[in-house]
Amino acid sequence: MSLTLYSLCGTDPNRPFSPHCWKIVMALHHKGLAFEERPLPFTEIPKAEEGFSKTVPIVRDGDRLVSDSFQIALYLEEAYPDHPSLFGGEGGKAAARLVEGYAQHIVHPVITRIAVYDIHQMLGPSDQDYFRNSREKRLGKTLEEVHAERASAIAALPAQLQPLRHMLGFQPFIGGQTPLFADYILFGALQWLRITTGSIHLPDGDPVVGWFERCLELHEGAGRQVA
Amino acid sequence: MSLTLYSLCGTDPNRPFSPHCWKIVMALHHKGLAFEERPLPFTEIPKAEEGFSKTVPIVRDGDRLVSDSFQIALYLEEAYPDHPSLFGGEGGKAAARLVEGYAQHIVHPVITRIAVYDIHQMLGPSDQDYFRNSREKRLGKTLEEVHAERASAIAALPAQLQPLRHMLGFQPFIGGQTPLFADYILFGALQWLRITTGSIHLPDGDPVVGWFERCLELHEGAGRQVA
Repeated sequence: MSLTLYSLCGTDPNRPFSPHCWKIVMALHHKGLAFEERPLPFTEIPKAEEGFSKTVPIVRDGDRLVSDSFQIALYLEEAYPDHPSLFGGEGGKAAARLVEGYAQHIVHPVITRIAVYDIHQMLGPSDQDYFRNSREKRLGKTLEEVHAERASAIAALPAQLQPLRHMLGFQPFIGGQTPLFADYILFGALQWLRITTGSIHLPDGDPVVGWFERCLELHEGAGRQVA
Repeated sequence: MSLTLYSLCGTDPNRPFSPHCWKIVMALHHKGLAFEERPLPFTEIPKAEEGFSKTVPIVRDGDRLVSDSFQIALYLEEAYPDHPSLFGGEGGKAAARLVEGYAQHIVHPVITRIAVYDIHQMLGPSDQDYFRNSREKRLGKTLEEVHAERASAIAALPAQLQPLRHMLGFQPFIGGQTPLFADYILFGALQWLRITTGSIHLPDGDPVVGWFERCLELHEGAGRQVA
């Protein structure tokens, strides 16, 4: 059975950068499933799979189509129960929703402020129009105004990651001794920052850097292959 | 076998308020274990159990003494494996450390700014001296200066709880359909705010209020019995 992941790219299809798609790249490797990744520009997504979803990731697994990163993770866990678990049981599955909330509402906003202008520069002309309009509306500022405050956003990042640093005082991964989907949720956020801006903007010696490097090594260095 | 929980109070032993101790009150009820709670003022803690721990909660279970809320939860899970689980498996246990980090480093700081002066007013004279010195050093301001900015701290609270609100869009508890220790970690934070200031300072209709009320109802209304 063939498995396809539709993800997001700018003009360079070899540099997919979406945090939500990176969660699924890691989840598919975690499950030991072979897949073909098809990165799409923003404005091509509505044309994929006859308009199945306005957003990526989308996974086609044989006849089955699934969108939304968390729904895909739940699907993979159910469809491949004999492969390594993404959640480590029902408690882990439930708690991953709070981890998703932490990533999207505490970590993503500061990453957006650091990376939004760089993301714009990676896109083709049609995507740039869509991206500028939608993001400037959401942020209430021009991309250039956000970019001008980049240094203060970078300075704000470490405090937002303090929960992760706290956890790392006790164990190497959010999943415990080995990673689970909860790790990939936050890995996706920092991988998005790394690919779009060239750095995760944290000082050497920060335990979060150590954890992120461990994640980049996972699954034969799948995360490190894109820079 | 008799079980004792040493917790924290001000001048009124009927109003224990520590977030970390409330986690354990809920965890003990969750496990269906009878216990005697002995609330202590800050400056009496070092005298309990021959100076076993500088902080509460401390649990004595027969001959066994355990301190630190997370260590106590781990102890209860291991010592009472046939009672309802606090973690829902290994993935839930591991993720609870990130939830603890989120509570302590994203939610607690804003609660401290709202409640610190009220906490001071609940304490006896010796405790007030200890509390003022240690907290003013940590906060870099007098308690009165922090209290003067209380309205802005209250205004900042809802955004820090957005991860919880996000999760509540999918399920009624962090534990899923029923609560787990991860819920008690964040319940402890808001219960601390409620007991020390009389309110959790969130608008009616906020899903976080709905979740907090569900937590107050748990275990025969154990949380609601203290106001």
